[in-house]
Amino acid sequence: MVRLGIGDDCALLRSRSGEELAVTTDLSIAGRHFRLDWHPPASVGHRALARGLSDLAAMGARPVAAFLSLGLPRDLIRPSGRRPAWVQSFLQGLLTLGKMYKLPLAGGDLSESPVAMADIVLIGGVPVGRALLRSTARPGHLLYVTGSLGGSSAALANLAGLQQHRMTKKRTAQLAPHFYPQPRIAQGRWLVRYGKASAAIDLSDGLSTDLAHLCQESRVAAEVDAALLPIHPDASLAQALNGGEDYELLFTAPPSVRIPKAIAGVPVTQIGRILPALRNRPTITLVTPQGSAPLRPQGWKHFSKN
Amino acid sequence: MVRLGIGDDCALLRSRSGEELAVTTDLSIAGRHFRLDWHPPASVGHRALARGLSDLAAMGARPVAAFLSLGLPRDLIRPSGRRPAWVQSFLQGLLTLGKMYKLPLAGGDLSESPVAMADIVLIGGVPVGRALLRSTARPGHLLYVTGSLGGSSAALANLAGLQQHRMTKKRTAQLAPHFYPQPRIAQGRWLVRYGKASAAIDLSDGLSTDLAHLCQESRVAAEVDAALLPIHPDASLAQALNGGEDYELLFTAPPSVRIPKAIAGVPVTQIGRILPALRNRPTITLVTPQGSAPLRPQGWKHFSKN
Repeated sequence: MVRLGIGDDCALLRSRSGEELAVTTDLSIAGRHFRLDWHPPASVGHRALARGLSDLAAMGARPVAAFLSLGLPRDLIRPSGRRPAWVQSFLQGLLTLGKMYKLPLAGGDLSESPVAMADIVLIGGVPVGRALLRSTARPGHLLYVTGSLGGSSAALANLAGLQQHRMTKKRTAQLAPHFYPQPRIAQGRWLVRYGKASAAIDLSDGLSTDLAHLCQESRVAAEVDAALLPIHPDASLAQALNGGEDYELLFTAPPSVRIPKAIAGVPVTQIGRILPALRNRPTITLVTPQGSAPLRPQGWKHFSKN
Repeated sequence: MVRLGIGDDCALLRSRSGEELAVTTDLSIAGRHFRLDWHPPASVGHRALARGLSDLAAMGARPVAAFLSLGLPRDLIRPSGRRPAWVQSFLQGLLTLGKMYKLPLAGGDLSESPVAMADIVLIGGVPVGRALLRSTARPGHLLYVTGSLGGSSAALANLAGLQQHRMTKKRTAQLAPHFYPQPRIAQGRWLVRYGKASAAIDLSDGLSTDLAHLCQESRVAAEVDAALLPIHPDASLAQALNGGEDYELLFTAPPSVRIPKAIAGVPVTQIGRILPALRNRPTITLVTPQGSAPLRPQGWKHFSKN
């Protein structure tokens, strides 16, 4: 599908017949999307690519080609003593994740920059007219989520404390949901292949924010049942509702459609349902044993100091 | 061709039958590719898009969709007094150039960043197997260039001086080759349509550098005749040879192919020819009335202070 990669003015791609192309760009900037003093370079590379792959997953697309524009301070490009250069570990993290999807790096750009930044562009293929959209959820449809929620946010909350200790295997494993999130490509493609979902979005900014996006684009409201949420064992309810960067899929399906308990090895949980948008109804209602309350978007706002 | 634009996880594109896709990414960073104190914001937007369009032109592709990732300091996002925000003028410059090619902005990303930067991604369409490549020049082919050379570099050299004066219409016109370069989309498409060119590259880094790239990719050498160069009236020979950002097309064609004096209103000039690569021959030889000498790549290295 990639006919010509790095080395000419453009890369050349051929699309498979019967497919259209999904394109997404994601910008990661030091101090906002990652911290050089917190994130190992391999994690920064992994996360930059995972963000884009998760966008493809949300449309049900298969990854076809990646393009990377890197702006880096000079000291991240040079090896420091015996250790490989930061950029080398960054690329190793990015390419290791890419290999899982046989994803070629088909082009890009490297420039010196006073601030480290990476812009990743992903091109995917999806059967014509079958891509999962945000705008097609309908009242009465049920609301599902893959995997568990809040794990990335919980790991991030522990990160500052853990930095002061030696990184044991156990501690590194605890941080994995934040450092090395797994995009749900196989699950998105499964939903497209079997025509099961009526709408989808990926959870990059947190359930409360991303569900609000889906509701706005579909002009509907939603109800989430707190008791049904698959909360990550390390996370609180607030982290599950508002923590970003879980990169799970949130999708809807008509009640007549049978959704399995797991797709490609990842659990799937029904967490609520879509309602008609009414003037007096909040966009999202959270149902708890204590009663119902509006759930306002409080998604994770990156590493902003403001 | 753009079936779904901004507002979902990905944009969706459909390629025309018989076409493949050309993809290019170009990163522009304040202090390296532009200077906030030198370049008007509309010029920064125009130049960011022109760089990408010029890459499409070099392949002979028609522009299909643009994606923009912007990282900007907060004060460039806010309006200052009665003047529109920097970002608004930037976008106006970018979109005005895009309109000339009916190019939709199909997606992107805006993030706060301590340093202003823009990554532009362009997707083009080109008839399958017909894209102009860097790697297909052959010994004996003639070397052509569109437009004139050195204009951007000459304008840039004048820019510091002109900043101290009021910008008259004449002064602004003098700076146009640098502030508002015109990518050669129509000329690239013409070369593909009529199958005239054997190889092509765009002149973004300067003739001496970009011709060396073309020679390396094609494993050939080249000879440039200084007396034939279409030097911009404001430029020196050195600026024509080494000045970057002219965004003209450099292409080759077999001697049997008739190349017109102008394509789509832009002059075309034969400036030399392709030679076999030999062990003792420099990659590029510059022929002058005083004799022949190797021409080393000395392309423009952006606004680096090093």
